[in-house]
Amino acid sequence: MPPPSVNGKYVFLSKIRSPEDLKRFKPEDLQKVADECRAYLIDVVSENGGHFGSSLGVVEMSVALHYVYKTPNDKIIWDVGHQAYIHKILTGRKDQMHTNRKFNGLAGFPKMSESPHDAFGTGHASTSISAAAGMAAARDLSGSNEKIIAVIGDGSMTGGMAFEAMNHLGDSKSDVLVILNDNQMAIAPSTGGLRNYLVNISLNKTYNRVRKFIWDSISLLNNDLGDAAKNAVHKIEDGIKAALTPGAFFEALGFRYFGPIDGHNTEQLVKALKEMHELPHPKLLHIITTKGKGFKPAEDNQSKWHASSGGFDTATGKSLKKPGKTQPPKYQDIFGSALTELADKDHRITGITAAMSSGTSLDLFQKAHPERFYDVGIAEQHAVTFAAGLAANGYKPFCAIYSTFLQRAYDQLIHDVALQKLPVVFAIDRAGLVGEDGPTHHGSFDLSYLHPVPNMVIMAPKDEQELRDMLSTAAKHTKGPVAIRYPRGICTGMPLRSGFNTMEIGKGEIVREGSSIAVLAIGTMVQRSVEAARILEEEGIDALVANMRFLKPLDTVLLDSIAKQHDTIVVIEENSIIGGLGSAVSDHLQKKRLTNNVMKIGLPDSFVTHGSMNDLYRLLKLDAENISRQISTFYKGTATEKSERVQSTIRTERLA
Amino acid sequence: MPPPSVNGKYVFLSKIRSPEDLKRFKPEDLQKVADECRAYLIDVVSENGGHFGSSLGVVEMSVALHYVYKTPNDKIIWDVGHQAYIHKILTGRKDQMHTNRKFNGLAGFPKMSESPHDAFGTGHASTSISAAAGMAAARDLSGSNEKIIAVIGDGSMTGGMAFEAMNHLGDSKSDVLVILNDNQMAIAPSTGGLRNYLVNISLNKTYNRVRKFIWDSISLLNNDLGDAAKNAVHKIEDGIKAALTPGAFFEALGFRYFGPIDGHNTEQLVKALKEMHELPHPKLLHIITTKGKGFKPAEDNQSKWHASSGGFDTATGKSLKKPGKTQPPKYQDIFGSALTELADKDHRITGITAAMSSGTSLDLFQKAHPERFYDVGIAEQHAVTFAAGLAANGYKPFCAIYSTFLQRAYDQLIHDVALQKLPVVFAIDRAGLVGEDGPTHHGSFDLSYLHPVPNMVIMAPKDEQELRDMLSTAAKHTKGPVAIRYPRGICTGMPLRSGFNTMEIGKGEIVREGSSIAVLAIGTMVQRSVEAARILEEEGIDALVANMRFLKPLDTVLLDSIAKQHDTIVVIEENSIIGGLGSAVSDHLQKKRLTNNVMKIGLPDSFVTHGSMNDLYRLLKLDAENISRQISTFYKGTATEKSERVQSTIRTERLA
Repeated sequence: MPPPSVNGKYVFLSKIRSPEDLKRFKPEDLQKVADECRAYLIDVVSENGGHFGSSLGVVEMSVALHYVYKTPNDKIIWDVGHQAYIHKILTGRKDQMHTNRKFNGLAGFPKMSESPHDAFGTGHASTSISAAAGMAAARDLSGSNEKIIAVIGDGSMTGGMAFEAMNHLGDSKSDVLVILNDNQMAIAPSTGGLRNYLVNISLNKTYNRVRKFIWDSISLLNNDLGDAAKNAVHKIEDGIKAALTPGAFFEALGFRYFGPIDGHNTEQLVKALKEMHELPHPKLLHIITTKGKGFKPAEDNQSKWHASSGGFDTATGKSLKKPGKTQPPKYQDIFGSALTELADKDHRITGITAAMSSGTSLDLFQKAHPERFYDVGIAEQHAVTFAAGLAANGYKPFCAIYSTFLQRAYDQLIHDVALQKLPVVFAIDRAGLVGEDGPTHHGSFDLSYLHPVPNMVIMAPKDEQELRDMLSTAAKHTKGPVAIRYPRGICTGMPLRSGFNTMEIGKGEIVREGSSIAVLAIGTMVQRSVEAARILEEEGIDALVANMRFLKPLDTVLLDSIAKQHDTIVVIEENSIIGGLGSAVSDHLQKKRLTNNVMKIGLPDSFVTHGSMNDLYRLLKLDAENISRQISTFYKGTATEKSERVQSTIRTERLA
Repeated sequence: MPPPSVNGKYVFLSKIRSPEDLKRFKPEDLQKVADECRAYLIDVVSENGGHFGSSLGVVEMSVALHYVYKTPNDKIIWDVGHQAYIHKILTGRKDQMHTNRKFNGLAGFPKMSESPHDAFGTGHASTSISAAAGMAAARDLSGSNEKIIAVIGDGSMTGGMAFEAMNHLGDSKSDVLVILNDNQMAIAPSTGGLRNYLVNISLNKTYNRVRKFIWDSISLLNNDLGDAAKNAVHKIEDGIKAALTPGAFFEALGFRYFGPIDGHNTEQLVKALKEMHELPHPKLLHIITTKGKGFKPAEDNQSKWHASSGGFDTATGKSLKKPGKTQPPKYQDIFGSALTELADKDHRITGITAAMSSGTSLDLFQKAHPERFYDVGIAEQHAVTFAAGLAANGYKPFCAIYSTFLQRAYDQLIHDVALQKLPVVFAIDRAGLVGEDGPTHHGSFDLSYLHPVPNMVIMAPKDEQELRDMLSTAAKHTKGPVAIRYPRGICTGMPLRSGFNTMEIGKGEIVREGSSIAVLAIGTMVQRSVEAARILEEEGIDALVANMRFLKPLDTVLLDSIAKQHDTIVVIEENSIIGGLGSAVSDHLQKKRLTNNVMKIGLPDSFVTHGSMNDLYRLLKLDAENISRQISTFYKGTATEKSERVQSTIRTERLA
């Protein structure tokens, strides 16, 4: 697709190649610039897909920020980062937006190496205030005078590290502006006490005028009331408190609070930013925005339009893609529906998500068992220890968390769950590569970081049937925690058995017999290995393929039996090559002094870029074609080497 | 030492064998019970050592809680857990307190397997509200009516997960009592905006009476004032806001706030707990306590008396231990002084701690370079991304964090530091076993969880000289992050060179030549391996010992050269046997198809109990004697096996 800017539709935007160009406009033209940015964004995403709703919500704020501040000298840090599309458009990357999230194209998130205007890379939530505090400390030490701004959504504000950062920054008195982009949504609607508080602030502005009257009245009223009346009074009181001291929560942490103001009014935003520009110390500007603003379908269904795969009508949002054949379900849907089924029969099963109910399809469980569903907000640490509390008192919690986000709760998983052998199940979605979201979101490390944790059972299904059976097996495992990692994306489409089979913990299976070489695989790589074995067959290499199923406990019986019959072994996994299944197999083979001819195939010891799954598999030589080629080379090499070694041993012996 | 209770000094306490016994006392006797608990605690700790200050601070609260609530049906969760000594005394473990923290004795923290009164194991900070929320959810699902109480210090309240938990719990409306034990200290004095806010609440109680008058006055005043006057008005305003809506911060999150009240007055405490007992919904009771209360030396120097190794006079606090020979310095002190020296010459060096300035000896750096020192509170996540912000803008941050606590910042280390190749140095203290603190605090996993992270350099010094040189080397490494892991406890006592030598990244060394077998060690295990080699020498086994220094990049040149000359290799590390140096060596040897005769010695795949370091080393067979024995057995086994294998090859060949 040619960049949309060439077609004359974008009168203002076509003149903006850098933030300097934006500053030449009059303040009263900024809304028009914003309108064009929005239209451009809708054009680009309708063609190419991408994150959507959150960038639509910060169009005006992005324009206002770049109008008032001077990047790259001033630093703007965009929390989570998928709200930074307009920022990218305004900072010289407009004409590359059609390459967004594509292999070798722009990243879907701010990236320091992509542009000097990207002050800090973001992807996971709640990091922006910490990074801003660090940059402010650097500025204060070096005596320079740049401004530091963190833009953070109310969803990300529920993440503990945002609070840690505000608590520290508030005390430091360092000049940082935090913009709280309050759209009452993370990917799912925001939850939590803070959320309610923010609603109180914005709803209760008018109370300000009558606060004294009501305050006095309540003191009189509060003495002899029934419960219902007391509750009513409490509600009024909450509203009044929020109105009396708006932002008291933030002021408690040492911030000056300003707002709330309309986040879709460029004039108001520019005025507020200019007024606050020279105020020293930490300050927070609370803006109210609508996620998906300006695109009716996205405003109406914010979760659905959080991101789009493109190919829709820019007026109606209707899909322009030809209806293809029906796709198999996604792994996440298999998880959501299987858990629902299991919970129908087991009242101890509970489901926990950290603001990812639709992303993990735990919303299926939520619909069926709302009383046993918990969305704790963007708060993985709390999610895991909350689950530990449930497990300690007799329940069977399933924590559905993406692999990359579970890194946030690593300590809780060790200290609160595994150490106490609590039966928490970690349903680890998006394990392995995730494609377009790139290095911040690939689930590259979970097998490695889980493996050393004592008391864990760690498994990965080869297909959707096995995922169902693993979930059922995990629900029955009461001795300690279980981790099940499964990939992003669609399943094999196989017919599914009804009901569930319980698997034996620590038992793998041979899925293809073969005599030349043995391939041990886990998860997504089992099917891929079978495909590779078919290719190898044409070369006359007869590969056994084993589905190891469990990283921990490792099926050492199967492994020993294979190693006794196969001198050459290949281990394949969609996880870092360091510390995963490959290392576990090597460790065991060495311990038993079995074969030393082992090749490992997995994710490299480097961060993997973004792109389509197929692009990335090819890049990393993890497609069936490349896997078969690597195995073939390895097999031929070890065969030659072995024959040489035997010859040399014979020679040595004869000489002796 | 015989339990102190037998000597007639404890009239009340001797009658208490369970919380039921406590409930038989009249309310007016509770202060005397508390006084005896305190005296008993001082007696026990003066003999045996242990955590101290925080338990002294919650004597009255512990008595009041067990007077009003009924454990084990009701659940009390003690955040961090070292404040739970009085709880242990009151719940049937009084006579075992002298075994506290000793091998096979009581744990220094609550432990579910030790007593049904320990509702949840704690050790790391800020977990209690999450666990309480989970237990409350379990109760609400099952329809039972037990009460759930979390007791948390103001220091732990700065940890992000405490905020995540309050945000969720406040919204859930579930009946949980959070007791905020406000002693204005973590291990070090608390910092942060929230801290200042709590001070405002407690200082400004009297404002309550005159709030209306001052409020009105300020509205009149606030218009035309100079800067100084404006600041003064702001300060008054903050005080008034806190007084007008005390606890607005907590109320914002959905809690009912009560307090502050005197945490050393049993009568007030019991009254407050009884009044709140039937109030549904989340509520917070703010109590003001003094850390070390009732023991003058501990009140006067709270950091010093956070924990004690025992052997002091119960009246004066003076040590009763005979002055022995001067001990070598601790590793942490070498770190603190070396960093200070390096920072004298390099203005880019900054030091960051998460409320552990004395525990990491970063306070030495703080004294010399206060402007470059940052204590961010109990907030490891923020600490790491704050460091990333400093590094992104030209500084060289050293994050001093204990191995076990760095688990809290695993995601930030990957996502904010390593992915962006930012030159943050992780000074990982307490790596390996820590002794008496036990399984919650051992640094068992850092080599394993750091190894798969791309762009990291990971090293461990064999002694204090090497630690100094590694710190200097890290300060010069600008390409990405560096992790240096070093142990708890004292150094070798070797004489130190002045200045620093820069080490070559990824280069190990041979510290002892030998021809029979090669021992590859890292960190603490290098010296231990040399000792083991001396023992082996007597058996006629001549062991080479290599100090690998780097886990990443691994010194493959050294490894290849050793493996070519040595058929039998032992790898030793004070880290989980899974995923550390041993696995790295195995992976490499297999890749190069070098020797397969590798034995790994390290921490087992289970959580290691508490006890003295020597007890634990012996238990795990990691003392020099046991290591030499294992090596000897392995060596003899492989020698026999090798000769058998050669014979069998010859036979096979001859038959062929």
